[in-house]
Amino acid sequence: MSKTMKAVIKPEQAPGMMLAEAPVPKIGPREALIKVRATSICGTDLHIYKWDEWARKRVRPPLVVGHEFCGHVAAIGRDVTEVKEGDFVSAESHIICGHCSQCRTGNGHICQNTRIIGVDRDGCWAEYIAMPAYNLWLNPPDMAPEIASMLENFGNAVHTAFATDLTAKKVLITGCGPVGLMTVAVARAAGASMIYATDISPYRLRLAQQLGATRALNVAEMDVVETIRQETGGDGVDVLLEMSGAQSAIDQGFRSLRDGGEAALLGLAPGTIGFDINSAIIFKGATVHGIAGRRLWDTWYRMRGLLQAGLVDLWPLVTHRYTLDQWEEAIQAMNSGATGKVVMFVGEA
Amino acid sequence: MSKTMKAVIKPEQAPGMMLAEAPVPKIGPREALIKVRATSICGTDLHIYKWDEWARKRVRPPLVVGHEFCGHVAAIGRDVTEVKEGDFVSAESHIICGHCSQCRTGNGHICQNTRIIGVDRDGCWAEYIAMPAYNLWLNPPDMAPEIASMLENFGNAVHTAFATDLTAKKVLITGCGPVGLMTVAVARAAGASMIYATDISPYRLRLAQQLGATRALNVAEMDVVETIRQETGGDGVDVLLEMSGAQSAIDQGFRSLRDGGEAALLGLAPGTIGFDINSAIIFKGATVHGIAGRRLWDTWYRMRGLLQAGLVDLWPLVTHRYTLDQWEEAIQAMNSGATGKVVMFVGEA
Amino acid sequence: MSKTMKAVIKPEQAPGMMLAEAPVPKIGPREALIKVRATSICGTDLHIYKWDEWARKRVRPPLVVGHEFCGHVAAIGRDVTEVKEGDFVSAESHIICGHCSQCRTGNGHICQNTRIIGVDRDGCWAEYIAMPAYNLWLNPPDMAPEIASMLENFGNAVHTAFATDLTAKKVLITGCGPVGLMTVAVARAAGASMIYATDISPYRLRLAQQLGATRALNVAEMDVVETIRQETGGDGVDVLLEMSGAQSAIDQGFRSLRDGGEAALLGLAPGTIGFDINSAIIFKGATVHGIAGRRLWDTWYRMRGLLQAGLVDLWPLVTHRYTLDQWEEAIQAMNSGATGKVVMFVGEA
Amino acid sequence: MSKTMKAVIKPEQAPGMMLAEAPVPKIGPREALIKVRATSICGTDLHIYKWDEWARKRVRPPLVVGHEFCGHVAAIGRDVTEVKEGDFVSAESHIICGHCSQCRTGNGHICQNTRIIGVDRDGCWAEYIAMPAYNLWLNPPDMAPEIASMLENFGNAVHTAFATDLTAKKVLITGCGPVGLMTVAVARAAGASMIYATDISPYRLRLAQQLGATRALNVAEMDVVETIRQETGGDGVDVLLEMSGAQSAIDQGFRSLRDGGEAALLGLAPGTIGFDINSAIIFKGATVHGIAGRRLWDTWYRMRGLLQAGLVDLWPLVTHRYTLDQWEEAIQAMNSGATGKVVMFVGEA
Repeated sequence: MSKTMKAVIKPEQAPGMMLAEAPVPKIGPREALIKVRATSICGTDLHIYKWDEWARKRVRPPLVVGHEFCGHVAAIGRDVTEVKEGDFVSAESHIICGHCSQCRTGNGHICQNTRIIGVDRDGCWAEYIAMPAYNLWLNPPDMAPEIASMLENFGNAVHTAFATDLTAKKVLITGCGPVGLMTVAVARAAGASMIYATDISPYRLRLAQQLGATRALNVAEMDVVETIRQETGGDGVDVLLEMSGAQSAIDQGFRSLRDGGEAALLGLAPGTIGFDINSAIIFKGATVHGIAGRRLWDTWYRMRGLLQAGLVDLWPLVTHRYTLDQWEEAIQAMNSGATGKVVMFVGEA
Repeated sequence: MSKTMKAVIKPEQAPGMMLAEAPVPKIGPREALIKVRATSICGTDLHIYKWDEWARKRVRPPLVVGHEFCGHVAAIGRDVTEVKEGDFVSAESHIICGHCSQCRTGNGHICQNTRIIGVDRDGCWAEYIAMPAYNLWLNPPDMAPEIASMLENFGNAVHTAFATDLTAKKVLITGCGPVGLMTVAVARAAGASMIYATDISPYRLRLAQQLGATRALNVAEMDVVETIRQETGGDGVDVLLEMSGAQSAIDQGFRSLRDGGEAALLGLAPGTIGFDINSAIIFKGATVHGIAGRRLWDTWYRMRGLLQAGLVDLWPLVTHRYTLDQWEEAIQAMNSGATGKVVMFVGEA
Repeated sequence: MSKTMKAVIKPEQAPGMMLAEAPVPKIGPREALIKVRATSICGTDLHIYKWDEWARKRVRPPLVVGHEFCGHVAAIGRDVTEVKEGDFVSAESHIICGHCSQCRTGNGHICQNTRIIGVDRDGCWAEYIAMPAYNLWLNPPDMAPEIASMLENFGNAVHTAFATDLTAKKVLITGCGPVGLMTVAVARAAGASMIYATDISPYRLRLAQQLGATRALNVAEMDVVETIRQETGGDGVDVLLEMSGAQSAIDQGFRSLRDGGEAALLGLAPGTIGFDINSAIIFKGATVHGIAGRRLWDTWYRMRGLLQAGLVDLWPLVTHRYTLDQWEEAIQAMNSGATGKVVMFVGEA
Repeated sequence: MSKTMKAVIKPEQAPGMMLAEAPVPKIGPREALIKVRATSICGTDLHIYKWDEWARKRVRPPLVVGHEFCGHVAAIGRDVTEVKEGDFVSAESHIICGHCSQCRTGNGHICQNTRIIGVDRDGCWAEYIAMPAYNLWLNPPDMAPEIASMLENFGNAVHTAFATDLTAKKVLITGCGPVGLMTVAVARAAGASMIYATDISPYRLRLAQQLGATRALNVAEMDVVETIRQETGGDGVDVLLEMSGAQSAIDQGFRSLRDGGEAALLGLAPGTIGFDINSAIIFKGATVHGIAGRRLWDTWYRMRGLLQAGLVDLWPLVTHRYTLDQWEEAIQAMNSGATGKVVMFVGEA
């Protein structure tokens, strides 16, 4: 095996990234080396590319970026029993400590010492990545790389959707970026009786309909709160799944929520926002769930159940394919807003 | 309006029923008189017909029988505001006291003083029935009478299915009588990843497949526990929904249930049974839910959500149609086991 | 019986109240007339007295004020079966419709059509009040009027405390007004392993300690977030019960909450506030419960359990006693902040 | 360090045990060697001593017995980071695989591959025991050995009690062996409004009262179902905690449970029993939780909270003290039924 590899790195504390030659990572006794097959782009990667406030506070270049991927096990450490060479795997991107009180009570998804690949340590936009064997998830050998590279992000959608019970409920999903769109598909699979999806992009709203939204509403063109209230006999929706982080969407979402309803929040707000906690939560006796990462491994088992049974089809989301060499073009596509999921193959597509 | 009406009654403490002329019921200030349009047959009606041990203890003839129906409001009492003449309604068959601690804490479905129509007071196999207005559920005027008459029983299925979370879970439904079959349809709508249904009747197992069972297993022909264990990688199913009351099914169900799984039990056992509480519940850390009636009115709202959104189609269950005059023929059909739901129209079909 | 009675009323749309002669209320067929024995003062009454923004929007004078009370049944309407003349009762102040989807699913505490006595219709600072019989709660005849008049408000504390599980948990209660203080007592009864209580009033912090707070922290004198973090090994508290509505307390509360923790919010904020929804809820995977009123009637049964078993002693809260004639003095005492619960007797104390 | 040690072993497939010289265990890279300070006796140890049916099926002699203990870390393996030499620890007796779906979803207490010390591999009635470092729980250095040796068993009580919410609830605890008695203490700490405890031993019923039972009822002398029904206004208890495994207690427990109540079952029945599943679970809409082991590590954190805050005092349970040499006397005491917890010190008491 070569000692070096191609990788997209964040070289310094400034906007941009670059394709570089980096050392193939070494693995510890409980780690595995993965030959990356495909990797996909997440909003977080854009934040790091643009070097916004969050990125400046959190990321310490130089660093290989990227955290969504699939690939084949190329080598395993001495103590690894979970996988063997040749296995086709996806990976949980959050590397947890195993020792804090969250980890010790089945809540590793909010481990106090989480380190995320591509953010806090080297990531996966590269030919190889070293991962703790514990973090690997075994895929069927014939799963398409596009789908397998998306599982980490799909897990955000599944974790959010399963924070509440959706069957026979009216649901509002605010924000139709890739993770919002996947949430539409999960709500459909879960038997929601009405799925409202909101966004400002006609492209994404069309995808939302394709994935199962009953009503895809453009917030730039209509009063969604009024519309939802009217169509639900004044009650509002039973469940809000907030995937955008936009203040206006948070506001519209809570105003559309029925008394006694439940909300799950995944989208990160741009910072402190104005919030009417009385109307949004207290007077209506609402329950609100903050969603971080994916439950280990309950969320992954649920994903497997949905995909194996054919209850969710992620293919309509695969709208753009590139190779790793085309990383900059891929980032620009993602940045345009007119995409589903953007996938980069490592090697041939 | 005539002072008398046709009704199927239980005339005395002995097997059998008869068609008779009975007085049209009078209504109190908070009651409504319903002109029955269609009524359907439940296992309970067969128990009363056959006059088995349970019936002998509970029922006090003479009595108009039947508890599943739909019809139109013909008259309302002085204090009724919930419905008006001409409304098309189904009904919750459990008349609750409103004063016991269960009723006062949102658990009216297990009211200590429940009186059931057709069991504890006059029922609906008749041209008219008097009902507390509180017990009526408003249907769309164009809902088919066959479907509307089935809602009470459909509610048992919905209540059982929603006792646990089924989405992306492996589910075993033991017993494919009408309520078991409806539960198959609900599990399908809720996005169960695998639905095992068991019975001994090939007729009913075919219906189970039509309604969405992934695997319809004939317990007379195979070892279902072994089959389920094999197909689930040794784990067993995540959820057991027990709809039969048969000791063998209860036993097979719990043996097929995974460690940490959940069970909901609706089927009534023939009496005290041998039960291995250690293996069934304790060692595997299972959670078991006893299911009685329908939650007021959460179950009914869920039903409406499932039906309005087209997530459940009950038509395949409507296998037999009669008029009230043909009640004996209808009971014999139901008794044969080779039916879905048996519906009787009052007046023309 | 006299046709008129003494009552404290809000005569017009302006600050202030007045003692006046008002007609004894008439009762409907399902109502009871209560001879008030004692009534207590709530923050809401102060808002109406001061005629602040909330009051101006909500209240339509003239109106008898007051919503916390106890008394004896003086007369009952034709259809009342729940109580009889002479019964000693407290009352749920929220009069609910019984017909909306919240009411019909066991969530009457967030009824869409709630009318509150002393706010939306005549209240209890008077010799008599008419109440729907459904709203009355039977007390033991020998319960002290001071305690019985407090139950409505105690219910807010119990509802908030029971939104999460407190046993063997570390709890922070922000705000030691009367309802915060009662929450301290409930947390103590529930076996919280550590109870932090915060306020700015030394008087109220002393009461908090007396009622069971392990640590009563004055936010004017210390950094409570830092203190709590240190004393909990960096983790923070398991549960936040927010009783103040102050933005600073909401902020401190969420910053003191552990990852994966739960919060219940009762205190009403002064309006839209700046809120860091990312840090407070999303990153830490918190669950937040909005609390309105009291669950009907689960909260009341819980109260009875706590008081009958002697698990909560409300007497330390009874710090000020007046007669109804002294209403203005009573309001001034309440307004000073240096009180527990202020009780007014109707007739002799 | 000597190469051999004193240990109580099960030498062969027959009743009895013996004190023997055994090799000091070797430790692997992730294990620690513990010098045992105190060990306590559990019903399971009696089963192994008597060589009953369960023991014959499960245990493969020769084997060092015992699974409840505390001690000091004497040596650690190469990869151990959780503890260091000299630490005072208790231990989770269930050694779990970490790889099955239960382990991977926060349900390690029902791991499919659990191996229990003193049952499936060498136990702690010895001078030393080797334990996976993962299984150790750090105690304060000054915790009394009697208490620390009891934690594993206390965890059964805590796990059972926290399966449901006990605050302000009426609770029935059937069976006042050591674990039942500890459950009484936990229910007291959790603010149960009424605690019924049942047994046939006057000695144990006295202990139950000392630990906080409101009513300690001797089932040999009275009709407990009738008594409980009368004292709860006919309703029955809100929660049943079944700690005995006796068929009569299971039966009495469910008959005393209110409609809509919850039950947690820990006691193992002698085998398949006659069970009226209709009355016990279905008609009353009960929820039943099977309890196995202790939740990892939620139960242990709860124990710590209860003990550190002084909410539970286990000292009244420490009724008998022996040294390991006196093991046979200790077993006879335990077998008599007239004990709380029987503790054996290794070395001087």
